[in-house]
Amino acid sequence: MAQDPIFAPISKRSAALPDALKLPPVAGTSDTMLEFALRQRLAPTGMPEHALGRMETLVLQLARAQNGSAIEFDLLAFDSPQLVVFAADHGIADEGMSSMAPTMTEQMVMQLLRGQAPVNALAALHGFDLTVVDAGMAKPISAPGNTKLRGSLLLRKIAYGTRNVLLGPAMSTAQAVSAVHAGMDVVRHLPGNVIALADVGVANAVSASLLLSRLCGVPLVDAFGRDETEASALDDTHHVQRVEKLSAAAARHRNAIGPFEALAALGGFEIAMMTGAMLQAASERRVVLVDGYVAGAAALVARGLCPDVVDYLVFTHRAADAGHRLLLIHMQTQPLLDMGLRIGQGTGALMAWPMLLAAQSLLER
Amino acid sequence: MAQDPIFAPISKRSAALPDALKLPPVAGTSDTMLEFALRQRLAPTGMPEHALGRMETLVLQLARAQNGSAIEFDLLAFDSPQLVVFAADHGIADEGMSSMAPTMTEQMVMQLLRGQAPVNALAALHGFDLTVVDAGMAKPISAPGNTKLRGSLLLRKIAYGTRNVLLGPAMSTAQAVSAVHAGMDVVRHLPGNVIALADVGVANAVSASLLLSRLCGVPLVDAFGRDETEASALDDTHHVQRVEKLSAAAARHRNAIGPFEALAALGGFEIAMMTGAMLQAASERRVVLVDGYVAGAAALVARGLCPDVVDYLVFTHRAADAGHRLLLIHMQTQPLLDMGLRIGQGTGALMAWPMLLAAQSLLER
Repeated sequence: MAQDPIFAPISKRSAALPDALKLPPVAGTSDTMLEFALRQRLAPTGMPEHALGRMETLVLQLARAQNGSAIEFDLLAFDSPQLVVFAADHGIADEGMSSMAPTMTEQMVMQLLRGQAPVNALAALHGFDLTVVDAGMAKPISAPGNTKLRGSLLLRKIAYGTRNVLLGPAMSTAQAVSAVHAGMDVVRHLPGNVIALADVGVANAVSASLLLSRLCGVPLVDAFGRDETEASALDDTHHVQRVEKLSAAAARHRNAIGPFEALAALGGFEIAMMTGAMLQAASERRVVLVDGYVAGAAALVARGLCPDVVDYLVFTHRAADAGHRLLLIHMQTQPLLDMGLRIGQGTGALMAWPMLLAAQSLLER
Repeated sequence: MAQDPIFAPISKRSAALPDALKLPPVAGTSDTMLEFALRQRLAPTGMPEHALGRMETLVLQLARAQNGSAIEFDLLAFDSPQLVVFAADHGIADEGMSSMAPTMTEQMVMQLLRGQAPVNALAALHGFDLTVVDAGMAKPISAPGNTKLRGSLLLRKIAYGTRNVLLGPAMSTAQAVSAVHAGMDVVRHLPGNVIALADVGVANAVSASLLLSRLCGVPLVDAFGRDETEASALDDTHHVQRVEKLSAAAARHRNAIGPFEALAALGGFEIAMMTGAMLQAASERRVVLVDGYVAGAAALVARGLCPDVVDYLVFTHRAADAGHRLLLIHMQTQPLLDMGLRIGQGTGALMAWPMLLAAQSLLER
């Protein structure tokens, strides 16, 4: 007898996904035998157990992810690392939710394409190819014609920014499905077996906070914590107003409980695309470098859709956002770096990349 | 009127150094104008303040250190990075203070020289030259003749291990002076402007804990904290016994208050040499990568002898030792990485090295 959906437990209800959504299959990577063998190989002779600390954990995670082929696993191999930055605008930015002007999304994308952003320097240092994806920026955008580009621009715009979540769901179900599919598609067409996923978008931390709050039960006032260093620029009243607006948005979309529904109601186009990108990358056994808070929110949604995806996600750094700390705790992970970055765009992911190279060389020893 | 030393304040008494000790002059690097200019250059357009978080701090520290020449500072430049590992034995190891056998010091040095240690892989990855210094190992040591060496061995043995601090001072004043001078000398003969300092030595964390306790007033039971992951291997009684032995040693040498006296009474030859190496490197405006807990204790002594030395010290990682966390707090610094390493030898320092390269490229942007 089919249960009435209203009486079905939350976990069942939340599993109801739109029929149009086609997610790739992701295989978990648990392999006790491999782990045992690698621990033996890694352990320096005569040293105490776990001498390499969390590097051991990293090596094992990477090895499990790359152990998918018919050939017996021997060494880690990284090939053509990619940095993909998804850019989108958020309707809620009109409510003064960010200290950055809403036009900054476009400016930051232009900086990225012209090679003027900090992450461009790191991409050049570490040999990452940069792809910027217009996931849903508020303006039509085209690659600047007169300058030499440092990255390629992909136009996958779903709409000219999400809707203001105070007034309605951020996106329709169809838009959310399209965005997830677009993210999968972007990854499918990129080479290599390592992909760093990052974001650009004014007020996208608002979406991340709403998703963290909804999917993990974190109070909004904690998820959207105040940046203490901004104390002088942003007075208490202003922050309280922001949190009140977030509460109103959360209340309006209180029925969006499942990860996909929450994504559509509260998320952003870049978050939806990163969700798809993570699932696709994991299904191809690529290693995913997850950048900051907003990419972390995408990981939260992706885990909700497919728990095994986390086996492929390397959380690269802890950003300055108070919510990011809580998000990482809920993901039960410790990031590689904790540098207090207030910049997205993959800067932290690329700073952490040499740790993966170190993991590789520790295994080659 | 000359004050009776007994009535002189502690700070005066502790400043009394042996006449034989010749320390190089170290210049502080404070430069407000340079910092201001660099902050402007670093700040990504339109981003919130301190967008690069602690990377900004790192860039500024490195730039200040390299700003010493007549040429106006422009970009960071790193040249011939060196890893120097000081190896020594500790008399207190006989008391069963470490879970490692006392013979492990020699074995680890052999592993390093044969290129079998984890840090060898990282040195190869990042292009560091390795020098192993016999600062005071318990056995005569010679470079293994039949295998190709991955590093050079310097014989600067002060004695065949320090004395057991339960029975007397670890070293005589003359030995301590010689060790500090030897450390200075080692650096003087190495090329490059970046030097990573690390250590090998069974039970050297005991010396580090005694020094931390003495120089910063940290209770011994906190400084020599228990490694929680060792819980099964090491029962409570055993740990309490160790702390009691440390307390006895500290009580025996209660008059060794100044940094140099404490170094002689409670330190180790590798700590004394690293102290000298840090001072020499700082006097030549080289950037010093400080490895784990024991190298941190050397930094503590070096700061006591010459506070400006810290301007040149980059604390690379937080090791698993509970005392290391406290030491870093007392040094008022946050390390670059926190990977829970239980291995010395410069492994953590070399893992953190790419952060300096990232700092360099952020400034070149």
